[in-house]
Amino acid sequence: MTDYEHFRVRPESRVDLSKLDPAQTPGCKDKEEAAKRLERDVAALTHLQYLLYAENKRSLLIVLQALDGGGKDGTVLHVFQAFNPQSAYVHQFKVPSTLEASHDFLWRAHAAAPARGQAAIFNRSHYEDVLTVRVHELVPKDVWSKRYDRINEFEKNLTEAGTTIVKFFLHISPEAQLARFKKRLDDPTHQWKISESDYTERKRWDDYMAAYENVLERCSTAHAPWYVVPADKKWYRNLVVGGVIRETLEKMDPKTPAPTVDIERIRKQYHKAVDRA
Amino acid sequence: MTDYEHFRVRPESRVDLSKLDPAQTPGCKDKEEAAKRLERDVAALTHLQYLLYAENKRSLLIVLQALDGGGKDGTVLHVFQAFNPQSAYVHQFKVPSTLEASHDFLWRAHAAAPARGQAAIFNRSHYEDVLTVRVHELVPKDVWSKRYDRINEFEKNLTEAGTTIVKFFLHISPEAQLARFKKRLDDPTHQWKISESDYTERKRWDDYMAAYENVLERCSTAHAPWYVVPADKKWYRNLVVGGVIRETLEKMDPKTPAPTVDIERIRKQYHKAVDRA
Repeated sequence: MTDYEHFRVRPESRVDLSKLDPAQTPGCKDKEEAAKRLERDVAALTHLQYLLYAENKRSLLIVLQALDGGGKDGTVLHVFQAFNPQSAYVHQFKVPSTLEASHDFLWRAHAAAPARGQAAIFNRSHYEDVLTVRVHELVPKDVWSKRYDRINEFEKNLTEAGTTIVKFFLHISPEAQLARFKKRLDDPTHQWKISESDYTERKRWDDYMAAYENVLERCSTAHAPWYVVPADKKWYRNLVVGGVIRETLEKMDPKTPAPTVDIERIRKQYHKAVDRA
Repeated sequence: MTDYEHFRVRPESRVDLSKLDPAQTPGCKDKEEAAKRLERDVAALTHLQYLLYAENKRSLLIVLQALDGGGKDGTVLHVFQAFNPQSAYVHQFKVPSTLEASHDFLWRAHAAAPARGQAAIFNRSHYEDVLTVRVHELVPKDVWSKRYDRINEFEKNLTEAGTTIVKFFLHISPEAQLARFKKRLDDPTHQWKISESDYTERKRWDDYMAAYENVLERCSTAHAPWYVVPADKKWYRNLVVGGVIRETLEKMDPKTPAPTVDIERIRKQYHKAVDRA
């Protein structure tokens, strides 16, 4: 077993990402064990998400953040394909559109928040506004520095309305990132994914780590925790994300609702319909 | 092999649903053969939808219509779970919200249309406005009767902008519907799905068939065809829907785009990064 609590950032604690090994795999022997456990977790997720949908009272919001190559897309593919697309969706946060940029930074996140019964996955999120925006100084410090409190309040509001929030930082090493960039270079069917910024952003690694540490220290709350996921090994990353979401949904314990109709009366209608047929 | 063209409604043709057997399974021996073929089709769909997303030029719109119990939700679960939720989504058309109802009937459909690279599945659709709305006389005939042309024009506009549209009517018999209602009654974990309208709507079966025949006759165009899917057997229904979408995507033939960067220059940057590491 893996103790996922180990990866949760405790509120008000200090975070030093350089002390957290992105290649560690505690509690899991190897890829084969991980594959078996993930298969069971995915089956459990499918059922739990069905119950969340059927219950139609609460919702789940999953935030995925990582540097480029960190594995956000792979996590969606391997873990969240467990969910029925009828009541789960992925929302990708790209460079803000003109409309989005003409609003406050939380506006587009709020619009994409899950309705009752739904599970939403944010691939990048409102946290970009204290990460990329901070690193590139797209707004002055006195603007972005106020945003941590605004984010906590925003998430508190969602939580009080019935949304459970879980946030993952997929933590990779610069070496693992480079190995993934190499794969993109060597596979002609993946070259379309290469962008100039892959290498320019890499030069700001330390700035990004500092920005992430601040996010983790200031925005891992009791109501909306951050998990730092060791993500150099894809199979361990999937295992941890799937396992945490499974435990989260198990704690929520959604149930199919009681019928809204009188079942015995409906049974009579059924028999009448059979007689007519 | 199954000739899916057989189920396509030819433009301007007459449709008599009572002549189409919902239990037929031409071109497929049994459930086992269907399961094997569906597995291959689902794998092909996953790859083709990835290419559609990578290409980022065109989009796919799938419309699912059926009476209650017709199998829309099951089709989503068994066929469209093939798609990566990052670039595919299901949009459920429910009773219009106050905001939706304050607009023209196509407004909410347009807002839900797929962007470039995306696949959208409409679970029910703008066709409800010439089906349920017509059967229940929610608007007068001189209002709904004009909508067929508006729908064709709307779909033409989407098509010209790069959206391929495929529409499915999941065709079940009254007997098959009743058998599915019985399952809901007998399984306590499914009783929450039962609604009063299951049986009241059933009494309007002939009205619904007439309304569907009109839709199929007037809105199966060269650019946005309707398919009548024999849906009494769930395995055959899934096979046909999956097979038609596979053929549709194969005809679209999406391709990964050429890299947007000079690969040799990027390769040099990669080697520089390796040297620094």
